[in-house]
Amino acid sequence: MLQDLCVADLASAVKVNGFVCKANAKATDFTTMALKFPGNTNNKLGSLVTAANVMQVPGLNTLGVSMARIDYAPGGLNPPHTHPRATEMIFVLAGQLDVGFITTANVLIATTIKKGEVFVFPRGLLHFQKNNGRFPAAVIAGFNSQLPGTQQAAAALFNATPPVPDDVLAKAFQIGVVDVEKIKMNLK
Amino acid sequence: MLQDLCVADLASAVKVNGFVCKANAKATDFTTMALKFPGNTNNKLGSLVTAANVMQVPGLNTLGVSMARIDYAPGGLNPPHTHPRATEMIFVLAGQLDVGFITTANVLIATTIKKGEVFVFPRGLLHFQKNNGRFPAAVIAGFNSQLPGTQQAAAALFNATPPVPDDVLAKAFQIGVVDVEKIKMNLK
Amino acid sequence: MLQDLCVADLASAVKVNGFVCKANAKATDFTTMALKFPGNTNNKLGSLVTAANVMQVPGLNTLGVSMARIDYAPGGLNPPHTHPRATEMIFVLAGQLDVGFITTANVLIATTIKKGEVFVFPRGLLHFQKNNGRFPAAVIAGFNSQLPGTQQAAAALFNATPPVPDDVLAKAFQIGVVDVEKIKMNLK
Amino acid sequence: MLQDLCVADLASAVKVNGFVCKANAKATDFTTMALKFPGNTNNKLGSLVTAANVMQVPGLNTLGVSMARIDYAPGGLNPPHTHPRATEMIFVLAGQLDVGFITTANVLIATTIKKGEVFVFPRGLLHFQKNNGRFPAAVIAGFNSQLPGTQQAAAALFNATPPVPDDVLAKAFQIGVVDVEKIKMNLK
Amino acid sequence: MLQDLCVADLASAVKVNGFVCKANAKATDFTTMALKFPGNTNNKLGSLVTAANVMQVPGLNTLGVSMARIDYAPGGLNPPHTHPRATEMIFVLAGQLDVGFITTANVLIATTIKKGEVFVFPRGLLHFQKNNGRFPAAVIAGFNSQLPGTQQAAAALFNATPPVPDDVLAKAFQIGVVDVEKIKMNLK
Amino acid sequence: MLQDLCVADLASAVKVNGFVCKANAKATDFTTMALKFPGNTNNKLGSLVTAANVMQVPGLNTLGVSMARIDYAPGGLNPPHTHPRATEMIFVLAGQLDVGFITTANVLIATTIKKGEVFVFPRGLLHFQKNNGRFPAAVIAGFNSQLPGTQQAAAALFNATPPVPDDVLAKAFQIGVVDVEKIKMNLK
Repeated sequence: MLQDLCVADLASAVKVNGFVCKANAKATDFTTMALKFPGNTNNKLGSLVTAANVMQVPGLNTLGVSMARIDYAPGGLNPPHTHPRATEMIFVLAGQLDVGFITTANVLIATTIKKGEVFVFPRGLLHFQKNNGRFPAAVIAGFNSQLPGTQQAAAALFNATPPVPDDVLAKAFQIGVVDVEKIKMNLK
Repeated sequence: MLQDLCVADLASAVKVNGFVCKANAKATDFTTMALKFPGNTNNKLGSLVTAANVMQVPGLNTLGVSMARIDYAPGGLNPPHTHPRATEMIFVLAGQLDVGFITTANVLIATTIKKGEVFVFPRGLLHFQKNNGRFPAAVIAGFNSQLPGTQQAAAALFNATPPVPDDVLAKAFQIGVVDVEKIKMNLK
Repeated sequence: MLQDLCVADLASAVKVNGFVCKANAKATDFTTMALKFPGNTNNKLGSLVTAANVMQVPGLNTLGVSMARIDYAPGGLNPPHTHPRATEMIFVLAGQLDVGFITTANVLIATTIKKGEVFVFPRGLLHFQKNNGRFPAAVIAGFNSQLPGTQQAAAALFNATPPVPDDVLAKAFQIGVVDVEKIKMNLK
Repeated sequence: MLQDLCVADLASAVKVNGFVCKANAKATDFTTMALKFPGNTNNKLGSLVTAANVMQVPGLNTLGVSMARIDYAPGGLNPPHTHPRATEMIFVLAGQLDVGFITTANVLIATTIKKGEVFVFPRGLLHFQKNNGRFPAAVIAGFNSQLPGTQQAAAALFNATPPVPDDVLAKAFQIGVVDVEKIKMNLK
Repeated sequence: MLQDLCVADLASAVKVNGFVCKANAKATDFTTMALKFPGNTNNKLGSLVTAANVMQVPGLNTLGVSMARIDYAPGGLNPPHTHPRATEMIFVLAGQLDVGFITTANVLIATTIKKGEVFVFPRGLLHFQKNNGRFPAAVIAGFNSQLPGTQQAAAALFNATPPVPDDVLAKAFQIGVVDVEKIKMNLK
Repeated sequence: MLQDLCVADLASAVKVNGFVCKANAKATDFTTMALKFPGNTNNKLGSLVTAANVMQVPGLNTLGVSMARIDYAPGGLNPPHTHPRATEMIFVLAGQLDVGFITTANVLIATTIKKGEVFVFPRGLLHFQKNNGRFPAAVIAGFNSQLPGTQQAAAALFNATPPVPDDVLAKAFQIGVVDVEKIKMNLK
């Protein structure tokens, strides 16, 4: 930070790491209603992530934080993913969740958290949350990045454009190319 | 970050910037129940901040995030304060709040936010929240520091130990020493 | 720092965190006469801060340092303030000063320093200097930011535009609205 | 960096982020023969990563760089993985490689590089290298971290200890639990 | 890093610390053939440094790494120099080298490394490599900066434009002005 | 910075990057008289640098600033040197100085500054000050590091322990070994 504020000019033709600054800052640059209502979890995974990062809250530019809400149907999963640029801390708004992250030594650190409890997912490590309860669940997540980025392992590997070659995935997962194609089809 | 994790050994005799690391990490190092229940707002300010930082969640050490919940009685105020080491982003759990921060150009950026809405307080700038609604309010705050630190302007100036000299405060606020002493008494 | 130099183009229409770079660097970009003469201390506080930051010395852009000189009449006060983006170290050019900073635990660390002595004010913490001697005093301050920013507690709270609401200040300082209005008037 | 050097005392009982410093530095702290000879690629993946990071070169502590060599049999794969703490740049010592990384928008950026050419894998993004040539291949990798960390997606998800629950993986990859168990078996 | 990628737009009229970003990223932005062939060492020093930094590989912008290859004729010297913005780690591709760096306490840390071995030169410290073997030598260098910068002590002092005054150099090296002029002539 | 303060425990047996923290902080940890009086310039170079960094002011630990005073006899030179970890900004206390720094493109940026004026030396670049006036001169320097480190080019190259080999220096400066030995002798 080299100045108090640098509200993102999301429409500028000049592109920098982050965003160039708008001429003025006003209160609406620092707020959003994006997280106000539960996301629609009627999808294959039974979960939805709704972001409140610099794209929704331009005042976050250069300030190093953002938030998201995640909603989970019963059985819903926020599948294993990483945030390349942020540690994440979640607070359970409703329901309960099985949560875990995996270290670079392939150690799973996991537990179950309930309404009002928190958990931490260190920067860059694979992690997930699953609602194994009978009721919908929701969390608020805090990140130490204005744009944490999210890379879902399954989607990145099996649903990229252009696609990751089948032979890479077959060898990585020690499965056949037919299995790879099946997963690719399922994840479309 | 020079490694995946460095769970704080809060009891170590060796003191460093942050904390030295415990030998092992377990899931309980990354969670707390501290934020589960509303704080007691039966005090002069009508608000209470409850922290979930590295002191409560030792797994946060070196990870650069923390959270807090703040509860407000009707009329309750989280008085003007700074976090020397963090930007703060809040999400309203219940009620509504008048919120604002002041830039180094002495410009107030303020608005009212309601349940499900967010606001941002840039690192190191004075800010406040006040519940001018008729019902209790509460927020979850996310910070980009494992220990943001909090400096309330009124308490730091008028209730420090040892006390800030009266002549400094009288001149700073352009009031009399008697007025200073009155504020000091009230803030004890 | 991604390159040797990036002399600030203070007039550019493109605004970034810090400043975009001018095409060329010359020696005059790295110097200023701003600090050459004592500031005029004939004001309510009896002190004046004169900056030599990136606004006066465009060569400082991206380099992470700046300086200021502060002059104090006898009895003059540089009132309690924070620098959101810098630690400050001062060297006494003349006279003597009562100096102090307040930690987030509301502990005052204070002493008296004389000509040729130094003191340190950690980043983001409230601090002040007062000339309780009989002669004018002056210091040179070094900062680890090209634009440290300064937030005077009294002015930010009682002289912001638009104003911080009276009820916020009254509750924060546990005084009446009339007292708040009096301070606001005095600090105009 | 707060000093010239801080050679890691790998055996110290005091654990910090990185390592505490040995009392003295000598030339052998800054070198290793670890990368001198090709790694043994006679394994399921047909590749081997050999590290020269702070664990092998204690002088790297606090200096923010490390290296590795990677050897590939014909058909060998360094499977999709991330480095949570480093960007990687590789230089091809021998042979040719199909290389690629996937952005958080699930875009694959891939090409083929040959002896003497380089490629870059941005911090925290999934990437891979595969030797589709007829001869052994090898690269030297440079990282901007003393200990980049490596998380192989397949191994982290399907071979963690304790294991990631089958229902999480089945839902994430949209496959059956039997398929999950098969991959787990294959990756042991 | 505030986003996955920011491929340098080297031709933009807008100059920032580093580079503004191109609209799109493609695989060719992340590779170069610059290091493919040995540099021409037929010069006074008998060595040549060939860079693969952000100027050759625009995809490196904001990613914090770069590489170079250095070739040495028998007797060739990469003369004492610093990188103001990077630690350097080298891997010997061929031959053998006498290498060393000098700490701020004027301690030389030096050794001889051979093909396949590595050595580290901490950020900002003077260092050199000399091929005292009978055969050509070459290294690959990794840096933790997209543009490390190189300042050769002899050339910077005795071959700058405009020149460093003779009296400065004479007093610094405790030699006569005639000696200074001789070195200046030799280094042209 | 992970906490308000971490006063250096300079005597601790545990060595880290920077210093471990003392249990308590007091005002004397943040001040020194080291800069109070002019340094003795009766030496070969006619100048003396007196430091007020973390070694003299333990409270500076983790705070990222320090100061120094430099005194110059008429004709005195602070010879070409770098600070590997800091940009430097100087304020002239007395006299006048010819000052300059050299970029990595071997461009000299130089001027003359007088009492009350400032100049900036970017991190890691060679720079010098020379008193070509008829009277003693002195400056206060501010740095953005608690321990900037200083590497004088001439002393580091010609007066290191163990010595930099003559053949390296002869080739670097394109002079004879006899010339090298003469400079080594002069700089002892």
